[in-house]
Amino acid sequence: MVRHFEQDLDALRGQLLQMGGAAEAIVRKSIDALRRRDPGLCEEVIADDRLLDRLEIEVEERCVTLLARRQPMAGDLRFITAALKISNDLERVGDHAVNIADSGLKLASEPPLKPLVDIPRMADLAIGMLRDALDAFVRGDAVRARELCQRDDLVDDLDDQLFRELLTYMMENPANVTRSMELILVARNLERVADLATNVAEEVVFIAEARIIKHHAEETVSGMRPGEEDFGRA
Amino acid sequence: MVRHFEQDLDALRGQLLQMGGAAEAIVRKSIDALRRRDPGLCEEVIADDRLLDRLEIEVEERCVTLLARRQPMAGDLRFITAALKISNDLERVGDHAVNIADSGLKLASEPPLKPLVDIPRMADLAIGMLRDALDAFVRGDAVRARELCQRDDLVDDLDDQLFRELLTYMMENPANVTRSMELILVARNLERVADLATNVAEEVVFIAEARIIKHHAEETVSGMRPGEEDFGRA
Repeated sequence: MVRHFEQDLDALRGQLLQMGGAAEAIVRKSIDALRRRDPGLCEEVIADDRLLDRLEIEVEERCVTLLARRQPMAGDLRFITAALKISNDLERVGDHAVNIADSGLKLASEPPLKPLVDIPRMADLAIGMLRDALDAFVRGDAVRARELCQRDDLVDDLDDQLFRELLTYMMENPANVTRSMELILVARNLERVADLATNVAEEVVFIAEARIIKHHAEETVSGMRPGEEDFGRA
Repeated sequence: MVRHFEQDLDALRGQLLQMGGAAEAIVRKSIDALRRRDPGLCEEVIADDRLLDRLEIEVEERCVTLLARRQPMAGDLRFITAALKISNDLERVGDHAVNIADSGLKLASEPPLKPLVDIPRMADLAIGMLRDALDAFVRGDAVRARELCQRDDLVDDLDDQLFRELLTYMMENPANVTRSMELILVARNLERVADLATNVAEEVVFIAEARIIKHHAEETVSGMRPGEEDFGRA
């Protein structure tokens, strides 16, 4: 019975890693499709997303079965409830890749607005965060997971910078409006992928330390003084 | 023991309803703040979001405690795992209201671009979906929950229409660019609120019927023929 349970947990861990790999790959492919202006590759992204949808349902079913049959306690229980959330986060990464591919399809039929520099950089950062979050998950490494949450600010800064730059393109010439708009949406989607990687990292801390770090709950718990709130939000 | 468990489940249901009420209220307030061009009201939205963040953590803690202490089966187990997801969806509604309030703050300091007609209409639709999803949840009404999922298309159509209209404003005059951009982002956030209401409705169906309807899993299960896929995504 105990051995079976360990096998079940390993299988669940394996499914989440498979989802994580698929999530990284789909974001990478969506940005490649955008850079190469390749409609076929954009369509592939849209098809690949179905794998993530399917994997999420499989993870959910496994979690519910485990909860019902094994009645896990403490660390295992936290692991399973976190798995439910992580699979949802990874599935949403796929949705953002699809949004990027949709923009890629529209942009492929028009001349390029400008060389893509910051967007691939944002993509590298977001994919790196996703990979490290999954790595921290496998190792149960809360230190690494915590450190990762701070990298989200870098992606937010790049997103802001790109947003401002693309607004100036729009103002300079009405012919730039639709293409600039699509690039703004692509950057927004990458920013959301980085947020989701941060969510996964927060779940890793929760599994390892039984502590909820999102929404600055830690500061609240550790006795933040009134007025110190920064209205931070996930 | 059984009576205690029923009380625990009632308390959990009550917390989710409180979150649902808070989620409706914060979206309503964000749109009021935008219409009235009231920076003070925008700041209130940002502060109110902390309540949703706190409630989500409380729901999570209650769910984990219930799973550990009561080892629920079947319907109760589905209810608790769905509660974890619904609370996450409702917390995200708050984040979208905050995004709208951020746009409201920027727009309050500039002259109005155009009378707001479609955005309040989208907000009414999205808030109505949220209310009905919570209502279906209280009554365990899967029929109503299913019907609701279809209303999401209306909101998507309004979002598309607004997006196109605002692009033309941008092209007509560079002075319109930043304000049009903010309104596009507001509409996108309302569209996401409607998606989240749809997620809640899908969880209601899951609780009532033990069936996962998201990602068109139903069609797949019931034997969709190859080639019939519509690449639909949540």
